[in-house]
Amino acid sequence: MLTKTKQFSAKLFLLFFLIIMMLPAQAQKAKYVFFFIGDGMGIAAVATNQAYLAAINDTSGFQNLSFTAFPALGLATTYAGNRFITCSAAAGTALATGNKTSINTISMDSRRENKLVTIAEEARNHGLKVGIISSVSIDHATPATFYAHQPDRNMYYEISLDLAKSNFDFFGGGGFYQPFGKNGDASISSYDFAKQNGYTITQTRADFNNLTPASGKVIATGNVLESSGALRYLIDQTVEDIPLQDFVKKGIEILDNKKGFFIMCEEGKIDWAAHSNDGAALVNNVLALDEAVKMAMDFYKKHSKETLIIVTADHETGGLAMGWAGTKYESNLGLLQNQEMSLEYFSVLVDSIIKNTPDEVVALTATMAAVKKYFGLDDETRNLQLKPDEKQMLETAFHEAKGTVEKSKFEFYLEYGGNNPVAATAVKILNHRAGLSWGSYAHTGIPVPVYAIGAGSELFDGYFDNTDIPKKIYKAMKLK
Amino acid sequence: MLTKTKQFSAKLFLLFFLIIMMLPAQAQKAKYVFFFIGDGMGIAAVATNQAYLAAINDTSGFQNLSFTAFPALGLATTYAGNRFITCSAAAGTALATGNKTSINTISMDSRRENKLVTIAEEARNHGLKVGIISSVSIDHATPATFYAHQPDRNMYYEISLDLAKSNFDFFGGGGFYQPFGKNGDASISSYDFAKQNGYTITQTRADFNNLTPASGKVIATGNVLESSGALRYLIDQTVEDIPLQDFVKKGIEILDNKKGFFIMCEEGKIDWAAHSNDGAALVNNVLALDEAVKMAMDFYKKHSKETLIIVTADHETGGLAMGWAGTKYESNLGLLQNQEMSLEYFSVLVDSIIKNTPDEVVALTATMAAVKKYFGLDDETRNLQLKPDEKQMLETAFHEAKGTVEKSKFEFYLEYGGNNPVAATAVKILNHRAGLSWGSYAHTGIPVPVYAIGAGSELFDGYFDNTDIPKKIYKAMKLK
Repeated sequence: MLTKTKQFSAKLFLLFFLIIMMLPAQAQKAKYVFFFIGDGMGIAAVATNQAYLAAINDTSGFQNLSFTAFPALGLATTYAGNRFITCSAAAGTALATGNKTSINTISMDSRRENKLVTIAEEARNHGLKVGIISSVSIDHATPATFYAHQPDRNMYYEISLDLAKSNFDFFGGGGFYQPFGKNGDASISSYDFAKQNGYTITQTRADFNNLTPASGKVIATGNVLESSGALRYLIDQTVEDIPLQDFVKKGIEILDNKKGFFIMCEEGKIDWAAHSNDGAALVNNVLALDEAVKMAMDFYKKHSKETLIIVTADHETGGLAMGWAGTKYESNLGLLQNQEMSLEYFSVLVDSIIKNTPDEVVALTATMAAVKKYFGLDDETRNLQLKPDEKQMLETAFHEAKGTVEKSKFEFYLEYGGNNPVAATAVKILNHRAGLSWGSYAHTGIPVPVYAIGAGSELFDGYFDNTDIPKKIYKAMKLK
Repeated sequence: MLTKTKQFSAKLFLLFFLIIMMLPAQAQKAKYVFFFIGDGMGIAAVATNQAYLAAINDTSGFQNLSFTAFPALGLATTYAGNRFITCSAAAGTALATGNKTSINTISMDSRRENKLVTIAEEARNHGLKVGIISSVSIDHATPATFYAHQPDRNMYYEISLDLAKSNFDFFGGGGFYQPFGKNGDASISSYDFAKQNGYTITQTRADFNNLTPASGKVIATGNVLESSGALRYLIDQTVEDIPLQDFVKKGIEILDNKKGFFIMCEEGKIDWAAHSNDGAALVNNVLALDEAVKMAMDFYKKHSKETLIIVTADHETGGLAMGWAGTKYESNLGLLQNQEMSLEYFSVLVDSIIKNTPDEVVALTATMAAVKKYFGLDDETRNLQLKPDEKQMLETAFHEAKGTVEKSKFEFYLEYGGNNPVAATAVKILNHRAGLSWGSYAHTGIPVPVYAIGAGSELFDGYFDNTDIPKKIYKAMKLK
C-alpha cells in the first residue's frame, strides 16, 4: 500500500505542477521603460503620416508606423486644471506626475506652492538610470516637467539649474534656451552649472560618438538652432545633424544596466510644425519620432518581457483635418513631397529676398521662383500649376510680407498665424492641394492616442485621462 | 489503507475542482448584438459632446456618455476600395460585410458584380431576429448596406424592394425616400410592396405604441420630413416626434427571443449636422445616439453575459477641430446652447423672410432679429454682442442670400457649403465663439472610434480596419 500512496503522491505532485502551469503568468515588471511623447501629435497627425507613407509607396489606405502596430491602444483626455485646451507644461505635468495643474506650471500644484514628484525622479530614487531626450531645447516645458519644479515654463534658466541638480544620467537632443538667464546676466551659465554638478557636455558629433557608459552623467546636444535651442526640423536636417533616433540609441547604450532605466523622449517639433500648419514638416517629424521608437523596439526585441514602450502626445495642435472643403472627397497626400524645407526656413529665405531686392517686380518674381523651387507650386512638370485664386493669394501675401497692410490685424492672424505671409500661403496652398486643412494655430482639446507594447502594455487600452498614464506606468514598473 | 486511498481521492477531486475553477472562463456567445453607427461621428464629435455636457453642467473636462464609459476602445481606419475618403455606402458595406468596396456601392464587390452577404443576413439565416433602425430614411446608404445589394446608393426604390424581401423582423425610424421611384412612376409603392411581403407599417405614434411581438414583421416610421424621409434633428424635435431611442426600445420589445437578435441602429443626422458644420445640431444628435445606446444598456444590464454593444462610426465628417484660430486657447462650448434650431430649419426661416419682404432694409432687420432670437447673436443679455467683422459677415451673407453675388462660385462654396449664406454664417459665428472650427463640408479620412461592452467586447480594443469590425462581431457571436 505504501507503493500506492507513493503513486498518489506522484499524481498529486503532477497536479500541483499542472495548477502552477495554469495559473495566469505572473505579469513581468517593466524594468526598462520608454516614454515617447509626440508633442502636439493628435490622431490626425499620426494617421496623416500613415496615409502619406501609403501614398508615396503607391499603396492605398494606411501604412503602419512602428508604434501604430503596437498591441495596446488608448485615448487620453488632455484638459488642464484651469483651461479646457491645455499647454505643454500642464499636460507634461499630468504625464510626469499624474496630477492636473494650471497652465504654464512645471510639476507643481495648480497654486504653484508644492512640488509634485515625477515618475522620472521616482525611478531615479529606486536606483534606475534615467534619460531625458527632446528635439526641442532640453529645458522646454515637456522635458522640464520630468526633472524640474517651477511656477512658470518661461523660467528657462531656473529650469536648467533644476536639470543640473536632478542627478539624472542622460540628457540628449536640444540645448539650453537661455543659458545666461532671461536677461543674459546670470553669474554662471547653464552649461557651467551642469559641469559643476558633474555632467559631461558634448556639443559635437565626434564627442557624441565617443560617449560610453563610462562617461558618467551626460548632457549631449545636437546641432541646435541659436534662435530656439532646438534641433532642426527633419525636413531641414543634413548629414551634420544628429537625428533624434541617435540620441535614443546612445541613451540606451549609456543607461542599460541590470536595475533598469526610464527614458522619456519628446519629439517636440511635431508641435511646432502643427503650430505653423506645416503638413510636410509635420509628417517628417512624425517620421523622426517613428525612427526614434524603432531604436526602442530594437532594445525591446532583446528584452521583451521586461520592457515597456509607450507612445503618446501631450495634446493635439492645429486641429488638423484629413480633408478640406475645397477638395471635398479628394486627397493627394503624396504632393507634400514637393516641399523641400520647413515654413520656418522658407520664411528666412523670403525675408531675405524681400529685404535685399528693392525693385518690387523683381522681388515678386524672385519670390514666386522660390515658391516654385521649394514647393513645386506653378511647376507644370509636377502638375502643380497655380489657379488664379492661388496666384492672387500669393501676390497678396507678398505685399503683406512687404508691409503693405491690406488685412486687419485679426484677419492677418487668421490667414497667416504669426508667420511670414508668403511662406504661410505657400504651405497652405500645398496642404490644401494634398487635401489637408487646419483649424487653429494653437492647441486643441481633442483627446490624443496612446500606443503601448511590452510589460504592462494592456493597461493602456481604453479611454482615460492623461493623469492616468503615469499611474499606469507606475503599476507596470511596480514602483508604487 | 482504504480510508487513506479515499482521502487521496477526495483530495484529487478537490484539486480537479480547483483546476476547473481556475480555467479561464469560457467566453460567452454574444446572443444579443447591438451595432450602433453614428454616421460621420469622429472622435472630435464625441469629445465635443462630452466637453459640451461638462460645460453646461459647470464641471471641467469631459462628461461620460453611456458609451464613452465602455471598457473596450478601438480605432478604425475607414478608406474605401477606390478612394481614401470614403462614403457611407462603401463604409457601410465594410461594416456590414467585412469587405472594402467602391464608392456608392451597397454590399456588392468593387466591380458591382457579386453580392456580399451581410452580418444581418447571416444572423437571420441562423434564426436570430433582426432589426434595422435609422434616424434618416430607412433606405439610406448605411441601413441599406445591411439588407440590400445594389450597385448604387441612389437606387432608393430598388433598395426599398430589397428591404421588403429581406424578411428582417423590424425596421424603424425614417421612411422611404422615393417610394414611387426616381421618377415617381413605379407601379407599386415601396410601402405597398412591403405590405405585400408581409410587413405591418406604422406611421403614427398611436400605431407605433400598439406594436407588440405579435405584430409580425414591422416597418415603423416616425414623424418624417417630406424632403428627405428622415427624422428631424433632435434640436428641432417636438413632443410629436418619436425619438431614435424609442425605436430601439420598441425594437428590443419586438425582437427579444431565446435565439437572440441583431440590431443595427444608425444615428444618421450626426453626419448631416457635420456636413452643415452645425455644432449645436451635432452635439444634440450625438446625445440622441447616447439616449438610444442607453436603451441597449438597459437590456445589457439584464443579459450582460450574452449581450454585445458596439458603438462606432462609418467615417468622420467635417474635419471638426476642438479649437479655432480666432479663439486660440479659449473655448466656451456652453454657448452652443444659444442655438434653438438647426441650420436646416433656420435656412427655411431666412428664405421665407427674404422672399416675403420686398424692402431690403426691412428684410435685413428682420433677418438680424431672427439671428438674434435663434442664435443669441448680438444679444447683450447673453453676452454675445456681435463684433464689427461678424456683423459684416452676416450682412454680406444676407446680400448673397438675396442673390447679389459677391463671391466666386468656389469662394461661395468655401464660405457657406451648399447652405443658405445667412444660416451658415450665423452657425459659423456661434461655432467660432464656442471655440470650434471645421475643415470640410464633406467626409474626412481620420480614423474613427469604436466603443464596446459585453460578450466579446475585448476584441474591439486596438487599432484596426473597419472591415475587421464585422469579423470581430462574427467571432463574438460565434456565427462563422
